[in-house]
Amino acid sequence: MCRFTLYLGPPVRLSSLLTEPQHSLIHQSYHSRERAEPLNGDGFGVGWFAPRLTWEPAVYHDVSPAWNNRNLKSIAKVVTSPCILAHVRAATPGSEVNLANCHPFQYGAYLLMHNGHIGGFRKVRRRLLEELTEEAFDVVRGSTDTEHLFALFVDEIVRHGCPIHMPPKRGGESVTDGPITDPPLELANRLHAAVRRVMRLVEEHGEDAPSMLNVAVSDGVHAAVCRFSDSPDGKPESLYFRQGEVYEPAGRMFEESRRGDEEGEAYLVSSERLTDDPGWGAVPPNHMVVLSRNTEARVLAMTEDGLVAPE
Amino acid sequence: MCRFTLYLGPPVRLSSLLTEPQHSLIHQSYHSRERAEPLNGDGFGVGWFAPRLTWEPAVYHDVSPAWNNRNLKSIAKVVTSPCILAHVRAATPGSEVNLANCHPFQYGAYLLMHNGHIGGFRKVRRRLLEELTEEAFDVVRGSTDTEHLFALFVDEIVRHGCPIHMPPKRGGESVTDGPITDPPLELANRLHAAVRRVMRLVEEHGEDAPSMLNVAVSDGVHAAVCRFSDSPDGKPESLYFRQGEVYEPAGRMFEESRRGDEEGEAYLVSSERLTDDPGWGAVPPNHMVVLSRNTEARVLAMTEDGLVAPE
Amino acid sequence: MCRFTLYLGPPVRLSSLLTEPQHSLIHQSYHSRERAEPLNGDGFGVGWFAPRLTWEPAVYHDVSPAWNNRNLKSIAKVVTSPCILAHVRAATPGSEVNLANCHPFQYGAYLLMHNGHIGGFRKVRRRLLEELTEEAFDVVRGSTDTEHLFALFVDEIVRHGCPIHMPPKRGGESVTDGPITDPPLELANRLHAAVRRVMRLVEEHGEDAPSMLNVAVSDGVHAAVCRFSDSPDGKPESLYFRQGEVYEPAGRMFEESRRGDEEGEAYLVSSERLTDDPGWGAVPPNHMVVLSRNTEARVLAMTEDGLVAPE
Amino acid sequence: MCRFTLYLGPPVRLSSLLTEPQHSLIHQSYHSRERAEPLNGDGFGVGWFAPRLTWEPAVYHDVSPAWNNRNLKSIAKVVTSPCILAHVRAATPGSEVNLANCHPFQYGAYLLMHNGHIGGFRKVRRRLLEELTEEAFDVVRGSTDTEHLFALFVDEIVRHGCPIHMPPKRGGESVTDGPITDPPLELANRLHAAVRRVMRLVEEHGEDAPSMLNVAVSDGVHAAVCRFSDSPDGKPESLYFRQGEVYEPAGRMFEESRRGDEEGEAYLVSSERLTDDPGWGAVPPNHMVVLSRNTEARVLAMTEDGLVAPE
Repeated sequence: MCRFTLYLGPPVRLSSLLTEPQHSLIHQSYHSRERAEPLNGDGFGVGWFAPRLTWEPAVYHDVSPAWNNRNLKSIAKVVTSPCILAHVRAATPGSEVNLANCHPFQYGAYLLMHNGHIGGFRKVRRRLLEELTEEAFDVVRGSTDTEHLFALFVDEIVRHGCPIHMPPKRGGESVTDGPITDPPLELANRLHAAVRRVMRLVEEHGEDAPSMLNVAVSDGVHAAVCRFSDSPDGKPESLYFRQGEVYEPAGRMFEESRRGDEEGEAYLVSSERLTDDPGWGAVPPNHMVVLSRNTEARVLAMTEDGLVAPE
Repeated sequence: MCRFTLYLGPPVRLSSLLTEPQHSLIHQSYHSRERAEPLNGDGFGVGWFAPRLTWEPAVYHDVSPAWNNRNLKSIAKVVTSPCILAHVRAATPGSEVNLANCHPFQYGAYLLMHNGHIGGFRKVRRRLLEELTEEAFDVVRGSTDTEHLFALFVDEIVRHGCPIHMPPKRGGESVTDGPITDPPLELANRLHAAVRRVMRLVEEHGEDAPSMLNVAVSDGVHAAVCRFSDSPDGKPESLYFRQGEVYEPAGRMFEESRRGDEEGEAYLVSSERLTDDPGWGAVPPNHMVVLSRNTEARVLAMTEDGLVAPE
Repeated sequence: MCRFTLYLGPPVRLSSLLTEPQHSLIHQSYHSRERAEPLNGDGFGVGWFAPRLTWEPAVYHDVSPAWNNRNLKSIAKVVTSPCILAHVRAATPGSEVNLANCHPFQYGAYLLMHNGHIGGFRKVRRRLLEELTEEAFDVVRGSTDTEHLFALFVDEIVRHGCPIHMPPKRGGESVTDGPITDPPLELANRLHAAVRRVMRLVEEHGEDAPSMLNVAVSDGVHAAVCRFSDSPDGKPESLYFRQGEVYEPAGRMFEESRRGDEEGEAYLVSSERLTDDPGWGAVPPNHMVVLSRNTEARVLAMTEDGLVAPE
Repeated sequence: MCRFTLYLGPPVRLSSLLTEPQHSLIHQSYHSRERAEPLNGDGFGVGWFAPRLTWEPAVYHDVSPAWNNRNLKSIAKVVTSPCILAHVRAATPGSEVNLANCHPFQYGAYLLMHNGHIGGFRKVRRRLLEELTEEAFDVVRGSTDTEHLFALFVDEIVRHGCPIHMPPKRGGESVTDGPITDPPLELANRLHAAVRRVMRLVEEHGEDAPSMLNVAVSDGVHAAVCRFSDSPDGKPESLYFRQGEVYEPAGRMFEESRRGDEEGEAYLVSSERLTDDPGWGAVPPNHMVVLSRNTEARVLAMTEDGLVAPE
């Protein structure tokens, strides 16, 4: 079922998420606390942005577990980034473990990762593909439900535009429905629309199977992370949010310090809390966290009419 | 563009194809002679049958090159089989190298491998998927043109039956068009039909790009291997055929010896000749080799009306 | 700390150990029951013999976990062997995970695997290497304590001969101390001597750190498996023994059936019991199981004077 | 036999060496021009320094070929460094391909990579290990001649000190023979001493087999690269040197541009010329290039009395 962590804020080292905290993502790869099965050893992936060099993120995937990967630990010490998406995978039984099936998935400037599953995916897959534009259809390389959800997200971008970083991976026109006044919300709307489309497809074809959709997307400047489940009885997968000044993780508690001349809040959205720091709060079920380097964070409710501020 | 070798006959060790001959398949992985580019280092795969134990073949895939794979060399010395399909991959530029994209592909008792490419595949892919039955659609896990051609082959089996080994991978009914009197030809017809369907799709959607389709299929008892190209000027990829008594490769020349109480001819169909043995002959362009453990080999012409004996 | 299973008897499929039993070795790779840490995901290895083809065993190693390895599951269904050594690794913290460090280790006809650790190994390593003959020194390719113990075992064979399969990996003379009347005991004596030498080295250089040495060796016909720890208070790692007629594992209980015309008892020695079958008994601490295809099993005490029958 | 490239100068992207030039290192991994065998597909490694974050370099190794590694291409676009050591491996026949055997090797702040071989290494290995201090002995994890040469280099540092970055990997005292007035020369002397010790060992034990020792070392600020062979008749492996202003590789020719406020020369030492740029010159046989961020480059002759300025 996977675990993930997203960071957005002043640049920090990848190790601040992956190795240094007491309950780092690598720790979660073998000792996850909030899943029935503690193990997430079916591969991992890290995506990060280097905006001073390029709009395009880098992605590092491997099918071996995170806990014994020397490359990952080595790279994490020397790479800093203002936007990091890291994921450790627990493959749905029957789903192949290979490089095509690692998160985060990438399209142009966009990264997406997911914890959960699409209900009745095998029945849904074909119908989902049929709805896609040519450009979004072309995105799919593997066989995971996540990648197909990602294709829907890309489809939404192709149809309705995207906040910044216009060059899609393979050129082609992107249609914008009008001037973008609220870029992070725009990004969040695309994710929300993709989730709603998946839920409609599941309802029509998925034979009532429940879905769990904790999904994170980012373009390096804006990010949206949702905590969604369609089962009124079942608990959605865990998701936590933390914001504050720049962090230097140290043992059990984050130290807060302001770094150099990098301004702005630092945000973390994570399947499990990386530290015991009391600053972590649970994201409410069926809500989406909407983030940007230079605006305030928002937590909006995911309704059938779109994203709305909670009561 | 890949190289492959198929063996059908009395059981031999995998090493008879993979390591022992002077121009073994592993040798071809770095010193291919009949391709512009000698290198086939983007992964490999070996499928083989153990009919005394099960109808289901085993498949061993790896994304690393064949020439330095210790597991492959170790296993090859101790595994014998009457039917072996081995492949070394040169990925089409832009095609991902991962486990989902290794040949041979497997569905139930069927293995398929390919050397070549489908012309204009990116334009063809979606139309091809639309034609498939649910069962065949479900086969696709990766992004190669070969796997999509395989899905067409499976589609043909689902629609028109298969010679033996009825259990398809996921149960379900298989329709037979009538009693099967000539099983190897039946198998060959399915491959031929798949090739014709691909060519039709390419003609309709592939924007005139040429295709090279050297394809081998087998169910462990019957095999069919075609050498096909749709370009009248261009040369199809190389393919050779050899038959005789049981072999023990030794250096440059195959030694011929009869093994134990295993009867029957031994057949080899291979992108390049494994030895200097004069017994190798080129398969004519646009012809298919039709093989079975207990019938004579046939080489039939691939025409628009089906497989026919040559003049 | 690892888990392993050894089989000796009429040929069975690898899947009888690796996948089919309810608590198969692959199940133990993520749900080990008798270790503090249930995870053994730092690679695996399977060695097996094909005596009708060659005296040399095959070995298949991978650094990725056993539970998601498709090759392993595929191969296990079609390979049968009268002698199988299978191992899943939990790397000692600080020990590298790479192909050089996978068990079982191989030298000529000999395979060895281990669960445990050599106390104070980093202090012992150099002194151990200094004692070795040139031939045994040459064996070491990686950095594990197990491989160095294996080098001691090979050193014992080089110095004192081996029961059968004389060709050592790199030629050279093997000294036999006299006619071998009891080959399985001869093999067991070599392992016992290697264990005693390790313990002496640890005592002299290892700074009193405790050692756990559950070790299995085989040459395809004979096998010896010891359960050893030098700490009088601490429990040694678990080890179980089972013997009986030929098995076809089925769910929770082994079915007992006699296969074809293959005679002889079937033996299993395993870190954990593969099934609930009451036939499993614990190997007493500091004892060695001595096995052969054509003699009765013995369980001998490991004393400073050698292997002796228990009171 | 391998190919490598070292860069020292104002920060550039890894892609400037690995992918962008026409004859980039990745191009050399399958189309090496100055070796009999064009293929270097037995793994690769990149080490680089991030001095603003830490003195410790990062290292990324893989056993699969460089040409199809998506992670490498992705990371190379977003990582910049003032000091980069990159290597593609062609394993000496018989040498294992695994993660323990990838270059560059790392010890504390030091990286080393090598193209060539130590003559008669199997006879030399044991004698070499016997000479090492405990700290240097502990460095060896695999089985390559390169790693053992690296252990000698570390031994020299342990015995005679090192220019900067005193913390060796495992603590312990470093003995400095006096104030270091010429740090890059100090580093070069250590490498030279290691090469001389290897040659002495080969002479005493290596049975007259020739050695090829093109070796590069760096601590992130200083670097030394030698081109050495002990055979008067044979040609040493190729090695080229280029210096100039900061580069942005573009097609066949380097463009020269000065980047931001980063001062200093940019140096490249490479098995083969990355571009057709006339600025490349061959390093004379048995000479060593001595580099530093803030001193002039020197090319010194490797004599029995040490490194001396050429006539």
